[in-house]
Amino acid sequence: MIDKLEYTNKHELIFLDQTLLPLKEKYVKTKNYKDVVDAIVELKLRGAPLIGIAAAYGIVLGVHHYRTENRKNFEIHFHKVAESFRNSRPTARNLFYAIERMSRVYDENSGKDFIEIEDQLLREADAIFDEDVEMCNRIGVNGADLIGEKASVLTHCNAGELATGGIGTALGIIYTASKQGKDVFVYSCETRPLMQGARLTTYELEKNGIEFDLVIDSMAANLMKEQQIDCVIIGADRIASNGDVVNKVGSYSLAVNCAFHKIPFYVAAPGSTIDFDITSGDLIEIEERDADEIREIRGEKITGSVPVMNPAFDLVPASLITAIVTEYKVHYPPYNFGGVKQMFQSYIQTIRKDEE
Amino acid sequence: MIDKLEYTNKHELIFLDQTLLPLKEKYVKTKNYKDVVDAIVELKLRGAPLIGIAAAYGIVLGVHHYRTENRKNFEIHFHKVAESFRNSRPTARNLFYAIERMSRVYDENSGKDFIEIEDQLLREADAIFDEDVEMCNRIGVNGADLIGEKASVLTHCNAGELATGGIGTALGIIYTASKQGKDVFVYSCETRPLMQGARLTTYELEKNGIEFDLVIDSMAANLMKEQQIDCVIIGADRIASNGDVVNKVGSYSLAVNCAFHKIPFYVAAPGSTIDFDITSGDLIEIEERDADEIREIRGEKITGSVPVMNPAFDLVPASLITAIVTEYKVHYPPYNFGGVKQMFQSYIQTIRKDEE
Repeated sequence: MIDKLEYTNKHELIFLDQTLLPLKEKYVKTKNYKDVVDAIVELKLRGAPLIGIAAAYGIVLGVHHYRTENRKNFEIHFHKVAESFRNSRPTARNLFYAIERMSRVYDENSGKDFIEIEDQLLREADAIFDEDVEMCNRIGVNGADLIGEKASVLTHCNAGELATGGIGTALGIIYTASKQGKDVFVYSCETRPLMQGARLTTYELEKNGIEFDLVIDSMAANLMKEQQIDCVIIGADRIASNGDVVNKVGSYSLAVNCAFHKIPFYVAAPGSTIDFDITSGDLIEIEERDADEIREIRGEKITGSVPVMNPAFDLVPASLITAIVTEYKVHYPPYNFGGVKQMFQSYIQTIRKDEE
Repeated sequence: MIDKLEYTNKHELIFLDQTLLPLKEKYVKTKNYKDVVDAIVELKLRGAPLIGIAAAYGIVLGVHHYRTENRKNFEIHFHKVAESFRNSRPTARNLFYAIERMSRVYDENSGKDFIEIEDQLLREADAIFDEDVEMCNRIGVNGADLIGEKASVLTHCNAGELATGGIGTALGIIYTASKQGKDVFVYSCETRPLMQGARLTTYELEKNGIEFDLVIDSMAANLMKEQQIDCVIIGADRIASNGDVVNKVGSYSLAVNCAFHKIPFYVAAPGSTIDFDITSGDLIEIEERDADEIREIRGEKITGSVPVMNPAFDLVPASLITAIVTEYKVHYPPYNFGGVKQMFQSYIQTIRKDEE
């Protein structure tokens, strides 16, 4: 598996700078939590599950390298660090999920020695990472049932190894189906503006020996018309409790095209992506990013300073989604994640008990 | 109007290199018809009507600068030049239309002095150019009736001044509506891979004082969902006699999204774009272009040598097209261009008689 992120016993975070892929494999090593915040903002670390993991370790980093004897100052510092991560990106649910878990562990241990608090935080970050690996594996197995013996799957953006702690969500399904002996061909949409499909998905498909073609985003419709696509599988940045999905911009257009061409449209994501408190996708904040992401590519100007709209995500209504694959099962409409919420909580409790 | 192409009395062709827009306005001056062929292949000259005009003048250039006293050699040379243009790009109808007209003029005058032949060819190229200007104006007037007093129009690629001899086809409608006092806002799809929307359409919208936003291609669906789009208007590279339209890749996805969101989808093109001999769009050859157009932008690599599909165009079936605007009228389905063919031929005959 690709090494994308590691917290070392020297209390450093080492991570792969995903903005430089696939042309350069450069690892960044840092002791400063602010570098991790910046890496999330700048998409050096990206993918909803992976930024949750990165934020968890970033909080440990922020705590470890803070020197104080004063409990009050320590507490202020912890909340400042957590807040920095909370403000890094607004949309991905997993980020907030990880910060909530780290904050709860802090609160539960806040009376203890600083070293003990840090130790508990590191254990929680490790748990978030380990759980994500396991969730990906289970999503892979659950989702592989949806893939035929010989299948052509279209995906958008990158919901693979580089987006998660494990084998990925959408791509995890493809890898698992392939390991089961199924013959899977992938069409990777390049994913404008930041080309995660062209840069990251093709990079890891090659490493995993999966055959693919890279296409521009607007080619998907033509491939569907020409019956080249058996299904579309994408990841998710946040899922509302009614099954509405927010994912990389371009996802909605794919869902409409799937509906029109009568092709299954699947979403794969761990329970940590579901926002049980949000009842409709319309209530999810969509991040608007810098216009230069569209005006330039790798610093090379395409246009001058023309007016641009650049939302990072879009909303796919539940009505256009054939099924949502989580680590628990394949969910079909009408989506009701009430049961999942209980499963998710008990699952996490099981993991935590195992660790104690 | 933007000066995009001029045949000078020094027997040079001067043209704007559209690959460098909008960052550089560089004019190329040449006496060598092969440079014009290359410019069409490399998209320095592009847009179905404009490459027809460029090929016509390119043939004149090729004839003028050929020195021979031998009629047989002269004829061989003429056909070689015409063939070079015929092989430059396979899809746009206007290119073949212009070459057919130039060849007919050659055949009709082949017994005359070389100077007289060249003179007739130049008159024909001028006529093709002048007619295109007039066709654009008429398309503009016909199409402006489809635009409301306050309208938001989405367009793809560039079907404007830079694509034609005149004010454009799709954009010509917008310019005409705007001059009529209508309040028109444009969403310009960037048009991967070669960014004609980002580079060329925004360039000429700015020059014409039309307000716009640049968006990535896959944003169109979201704008439609959010009721930001009153209609889509695109140009065409070739239209079959049943109303199927071949245009820049991405057009089909827009048409599907229009159908899904119940938004009118219009195509604007002159009669010279209609291939009366082709009964279905499936029979039109779609040019496959170099994979590096997707792997690189302005020479800046995005990916390594991954497998890529890169068709330049796609097919929009007539069933998804609300109306086709030509210089004659607004055509509604079922499309029957039999009448247009007669109108078109008599129109050209009128122009030719006027010139005699």
